[in-house]
Amino acid sequence: MQYHLDGFRAGDPSVALAKTTSDAKPDEVDVLIVGCGPAGLTLAAQLSAFGDISTRVTDLKSGPLEVGQADGIACRSVEMFEAFGFAEKVLKESYWVNEVAFWRPVEGGAGLARADRIQDVEDDLSEMPHVILSQARVHDFYLEVMRNSARRLVPEYGHRLVDLKRTDDSDYPALATFEVGSQAPLKEVRARYVVGCDGARSTVRRSIGHELKGEAARQLWGVMDVLVVTDFPDIRLKAAIQSGGDGSVLIIPREGGYLVRMYIELDALHGDERAADRNLTCEMLIAKAQKIFAPYMLDVKEVAWWSAYEIGQRVCDVFDDVPPAQRGTKQPRIFIAGDACHTHSPKAGQGMNVSMADTFNLGWKLAAVLRGQAGPQVLDSYTAERQAKAKELIDFDKDMARLFSAKTKTPADAAQFQTYFKKHGRYTAGVETRYAPSLLTDAGRYQRLATGYQTGMRFHSAPVIRLGDAKPMHLGHMLKADGRWRLVAFAPSGDVGQPEERIAALCGFLQNDLIPRFTDPAADMDSVFDMRAVFQCSHREMDISALPRALVPRKGLYGLIDYEKAFCPDLKHGPDIFDHRGIDRAQGALILVRPDQYVASVLPLDAFAQVEAFFDGFMLPST
Amino acid sequence: MQYHLDGFRAGDPSVALAKTTSDAKPDEVDVLIVGCGPAGLTLAAQLSAFGDISTRVTDLKSGPLEVGQADGIACRSVEMFEAFGFAEKVLKESYWVNEVAFWRPVEGGAGLARADRIQDVEDDLSEMPHVILSQARVHDFYLEVMRNSARRLVPEYGHRLVDLKRTDDSDYPALATFEVGSQAPLKEVRARYVVGCDGARSTVRRSIGHELKGEAARQLWGVMDVLVVTDFPDIRLKAAIQSGGDGSVLIIPREGGYLVRMYIELDALHGDERAADRNLTCEMLIAKAQKIFAPYMLDVKEVAWWSAYEIGQRVCDVFDDVPPAQRGTKQPRIFIAGDACHTHSPKAGQGMNVSMADTFNLGWKLAAVLRGQAGPQVLDSYTAERQAKAKELIDFDKDMARLFSAKTKTPADAAQFQTYFKKHGRYTAGVETRYAPSLLTDAGRYQRLATGYQTGMRFHSAPVIRLGDAKPMHLGHMLKADGRWRLVAFAPSGDVGQPEERIAALCGFLQNDLIPRFTDPAADMDSVFDMRAVFQCSHREMDISALPRALVPRKGLYGLIDYEKAFCPDLKHGPDIFDHRGIDRAQGALILVRPDQYVASVLPLDAFAQVEAFFDGFMLPST
Repeated sequence: MQYHLDGFRAGDPSVALAKTTSDAKPDEVDVLIVGCGPAGLTLAAQLSAFGDISTRVTDLKSGPLEVGQADGIACRSVEMFEAFGFAEKVLKESYWVNEVAFWRPVEGGAGLARADRIQDVEDDLSEMPHVILSQARVHDFYLEVMRNSARRLVPEYGHRLVDLKRTDDSDYPALATFEVGSQAPLKEVRARYVVGCDGARSTVRRSIGHELKGEAARQLWGVMDVLVVTDFPDIRLKAAIQSGGDGSVLIIPREGGYLVRMYIELDALHGDERAADRNLTCEMLIAKAQKIFAPYMLDVKEVAWWSAYEIGQRVCDVFDDVPPAQRGTKQPRIFIAGDACHTHSPKAGQGMNVSMADTFNLGWKLAAVLRGQAGPQVLDSYTAERQAKAKELIDFDKDMARLFSAKTKTPADAAQFQTYFKKHGRYTAGVETRYAPSLLTDAGRYQRLATGYQTGMRFHSAPVIRLGDAKPMHLGHMLKADGRWRLVAFAPSGDVGQPEERIAALCGFLQNDLIPRFTDPAADMDSVFDMRAVFQCSHREMDISALPRALVPRKGLYGLIDYEKAFCPDLKHGPDIFDHRGIDRAQGALILVRPDQYVASVLPLDAFAQVEAFFDGFMLPST
Repeated sequence: MQYHLDGFRAGDPSVALAKTTSDAKPDEVDVLIVGCGPAGLTLAAQLSAFGDISTRVTDLKSGPLEVGQADGIACRSVEMFEAFGFAEKVLKESYWVNEVAFWRPVEGGAGLARADRIQDVEDDLSEMPHVILSQARVHDFYLEVMRNSARRLVPEYGHRLVDLKRTDDSDYPALATFEVGSQAPLKEVRARYVVGCDGARSTVRRSIGHELKGEAARQLWGVMDVLVVTDFPDIRLKAAIQSGGDGSVLIIPREGGYLVRMYIELDALHGDERAADRNLTCEMLIAKAQKIFAPYMLDVKEVAWWSAYEIGQRVCDVFDDVPPAQRGTKQPRIFIAGDACHTHSPKAGQGMNVSMADTFNLGWKLAAVLRGQAGPQVLDSYTAERQAKAKELIDFDKDMARLFSAKTKTPADAAQFQTYFKKHGRYTAGVETRYAPSLLTDAGRYQRLATGYQTGMRFHSAPVIRLGDAKPMHLGHMLKADGRWRLVAFAPSGDVGQPEERIAALCGFLQNDLIPRFTDPAADMDSVFDMRAVFQCSHREMDISALPRALVPRKGLYGLIDYEKAFCPDLKHGPDIFDHRGIDRAQGALILVRPDQYVASVLPLDAFAQVEAFFDGFMLPST
């Protein structure tokens, strides 16, 4: 954490100085977020990082969520939480999914046997584990980030959106009408942008004429969070039990050491039948689970929460309010995210994760446009990038649900599920997302310079030593959710003692050319483009005095020096990052990293023209 | 973290259920703590873990500390913070001391040169780093622990202790009188025990007739926390600069990336002269520092805090109110801790650490006596253990201060300082404390069974895999500040599949003999003795179903199973713990660990009689 830049200030450094705003008209906001689920809160937390953006967040509910339904948090989401500054809280409270056990009927006999036991997440897939934690706690952490921000952003609960329309107002072209209690007069809010994070029954989605498309699989599932006593040995492992004839259960141990979630296969639904028509009770779920667990005993002591649902994988064609024919000529003003535009089977554990990823993708783009850093065309990339991801996820989800629900008769069937499960570990970890080439992500022409930083995929962390204070740390953890682009230069060999000349030249280009062009002269030089360098030599061999200004910038009220931009390999905590991430040692590489941590481009260190052309494609010169 | 044991409860799991107390007389308390510094708050946080103990904490100041003076946090203290559940907060905000640089005059020339650069903490000295963080933030974290406890403990500020005496009252033999504002009537509090954590000018110390003894070194030092711009390259490393003729500076980078603390050598004091007599100003400190830094530039932009002090190492003979002649016949009722009984030079960075260690030592003993688990004779060990430590520290501190202040003329002098500094790295890390044999710590007869767990020293953590959920974790992190004894059994070889028979026999002894004797039958079986086992086989080879009940106890309202007691080696994150900590693989070993994490005894696994005799020495049978 960096703080005290503008002077020493006592107290909790995660609490920003309050910014007194002169928002004369509170019913006019930059961004109106409808809905306080994971998608809405990720966006709100992201926007709250910018003191110059006004945001309102509303929710239908009367207060914060207390008992959440989603609980699976993919490695990639924990990486994102690190960017928001609360990963350590999640890591502390959560259950860590370390291994998965597969159980199936004893071949030619009675009872169940463990068929396999595998690592849940491959080594070095992420520096973060796959964890399980109540959605309610994730909300709490986001709410804390918002509350601590300069704008002290808090949700407005008990707000029911009754109408949303696009108007001719050139500044605030979205007009939302809320009902706040049945007695109060309707409340109008005008916004530059509206983001509907209002769930599967989204009013925002309806207002822009979109619908979720896709068929339900008609398979009924029960889910319950329970405190149990059992002699089943893998009750504290993620475990899939395929019984002989009674269907299957997926066990997801929960945080705290005692609570367990069970997904229980029930029957197929017929015709127009809905889950509610079955008059399911919690006792029925327990009885079913007990049959699947047999011969193991399952004694349910408390049911903290339960539900029954049918699997439905559905997605909207477009995630904003621009009709296909007007794409490129009309600016999107209303967006939908999360369950409002795609729904999934919970068993792949993707719902909450992909919803948060939606708005982490959108947040920095909205901020860049609102702050005059980027043209509105970047907003079109939201639906392009995230709709493709949602569709891909639906396909994955269908396969997964089908395999999971398949009546298992033979060990071969179960084995197929295991194989699929293993293969898609990377997918469920959330690290396989790859954005297609666009204004914001190039085609990867120089990918060979850094094979471990795939263009369009998230920047993959690795251990390094920070030069200034010799701290062993994760390189990826400098990628904070602060809306900045990172230019990460991996130095060519020959840098012992002082930076190789190509690094110096690159820093010169940045300082004299790129940064002045796009950065407000009154702002810190790294406020738009944050340059970092990784050298090949040991950290004791590099002379920090020899670093160019772009790597030791002077910042803030006093022009203090920021010493946290340069790194060297950390051989104690892993392989050399150059080998580990496939960096061309002779040439080095420059990685352009988007504010949402995705690799936009891999370039030669001297590709100044390409860097310039890339940013000219969507950024606006500083005025 | 373990929670939801007595039923699912939404919200922050670190907030305990509030315990409504029937404390009819708020002016009668179990423990009265005078002073809210590191010593007082460590004790208050420790006692707040017990809902059945009433505690009051007072402080002279009008509110929580905002700008702290102490800042060095030894590895050992971070280990202790982990036991209190807030190490991750300290690790996040703090500066990590990774390396130390030594600068001295260029031989036969002008200017300064880096003479050496070393790792600050040896590998595997602790799983925690040496860090720097304002004392005020450490206070904040303790206050949060207290606020979240069942008793919702908060300090009472603005309380000036005017009198403290021991009375004939058999239940509450300590009577404290406070002035609360000049207008209000005096307030009386009667306590079973009083602990004076009221600093170097302790009123509690005076009330029991003790004094700090020792001479001041008469060396004047200045200290300042500053925001600077400099071209000195090691400004973000801990660095000792010995100038040619202008004295020395110790640089301690502070948290947040910009702030730096400097300890600046000033002159010797003469006669009765006091630091205040010199009329020192901050400008004088800066000017002196600039001379020492020369030829490097030092531009001080802001002084967050500064002070001048003379080094004084002083200690009391006894840390409680029992005269030597009455030791063993009279029970101590009034204690002193921290600066109230020992003061140090700040440069060894020990003050705050040793103060917290004082009350971490005392807290569990007070709790055990108050809760009827142990006889009052354990309280005598506080002064025995901690006074010896304080004396040892003073000796160390004098050497350190003398070496630091020595007018450096030759490289040989500086080299001597470096050698001393390196040698005492373990000491300053706080992990060298070794309590002498006593009722609570045996003589180490079977030390050879576990050479890495030295009797009388803190339990040294190492990586393991938790059997129940395959989680890679630190074994030492199960040692929470909850007043429980841990019995850590390292299994002999031959445990593949199921526990070796000696582990089973030990568990039988615990379950049928030791635990019933000392544990309330209505309490969880691990509430006094918390048994843990480490097996030699891989975690996939051990059948959790085969574990004896003592390793999978049933607990709480529902009799849920606690699966977090058994561990196996983690070969991915370090060497095998059996090799790493010198465990006799053929015999195994049983380590008795005190509630303050110190190794009380290393025993053979079948030493039932010795275990019994050890606990019979000071524990009281459950009634």
